[in-house]
Amino acid sequence: MYTALLKHIHHYCPLNKAEEQAVIESFNLLELKKKSLILEAGQFCKTNYFVSKGCLRLFFFNDKGVEQTTQFAIENWWISDYTSLALKKPSEFYLQTVEDSSIMVLESAAEEALFERVPKLERYFRLMFQRAYGASQHLAKYNHNLSREAHYRHFSKSFPDFVQRIPQYMLASFLGFTPEFLSKIRAKKDQPIS
Amino acid sequence: MYTALLKHIHHYCPLNKAEEQAVIESFNLLELKKKSLILEAGQFCKTNYFVSKGCLRLFFFNDKGVEQTTQFAIENWWISDYTSLALKKPSEFYLQTVEDSSIMVLESAAEEALFERVPKLERYFRLMFQRAYGASQHLAKYNHNLSREAHYRHFSKSFPDFVQRIPQYMLASFLGFTPEFLSKIRAKKDQPIS
Repeated sequence: MYTALLKHIHHYCPLNKAEEQAVIESFNLLELKKKSLILEAGQFCKTNYFVSKGCLRLFFFNDKGVEQTTQFAIENWWISDYTSLALKKPSEFYLQTVEDSSIMVLESAAEEALFERVPKLERYFRLMFQRAYGASQHLAKYNHNLSREAHYRHFSKSFPDFVQRIPQYMLASFLGFTPEFLSKIRAKKDQPIS
Repeated sequence: MYTALLKHIHHYCPLNKAEEQAVIESFNLLELKKKSLILEAGQFCKTNYFVSKGCLRLFFFNDKGVEQTTQFAIENWWISDYTSLALKKPSEFYLQTVEDSSIMVLESAAEEALFERVPKLERYFRLMFQRAYGASQHLAKYNHNLSREAHYRHFSKSFPDFVQRIPQYMLASFLGFTPEFLSKIRAKKDQPIS
């Protein structure tokens, strides 16, 4: 079950056998059915999560009590509430499985101990956060620039498999529109963007 | 001119004198008047920027040819187009000084050489990107949840000095509304949020 994680780390930061062993000893495997809650708002998030298989989402309840999904993570993505994790503040988010999922769990204390044993993993996580932050810069651009429909089209084109596998009401929430509006624009998906 | 940068690094990752010297030798100082362009869309971004003094902004031109600011950086913040930097792709953004600014410039090649000399700086940058990414997760929440007016009020309360020092049309662009709408909500700033 550590294969996906080790392969991912190797791609950015080659490890020897002893370093691989240190990684294996630092993570726990979590096998969860879909719709399992991993983190709730108000809790202190003390863990970083790597998705080996399945899909997770980060969401909150807006002022009207409606769920709003702000982020998804599929295979080979990391996800957590990084502010709660870094600043030891209660989380404002919920983290939940969207599908049956296999998740590699890295507790904060285990992470610090792992960095002591394998300092070069700082580089791996530096690269992960740099890429994730870069992606968030681009998302801000799309949010500012594209119409809701164009945003959906862009997202579908960039992540076609992903759009197929997640429930449509979650995708609608992530893109900031109603499930009805999403159905409407999906119905005319063969038409050119107006 | 290296004082602010070294102090900032020390806070997260203490350095000895030799390591400080390696940092000093790796950066260049850029002193720019306000409204100087540092990066243009289409160029390959090869540099990371630390603001010692002043203010920078990241922006793009939307489909209507209007500037949209997506990010600001004041003292002790890093800013760049991290996707262009990491993936060696042409940038989709412009980077410009908002005020007369002193900027510490770290070229990619110098950064890699610096990581070889002082590997612990991977930790410093890992922490910087983790925090920045955490902040972007919260920004996504506010963008989904708050009305435009509430977003402005929240932003003003969180960053009062910042709101005072940047031109209002840039703040309006960043928050996604017109300068006229911003003037209107600032005019009633002593009223409670409706």
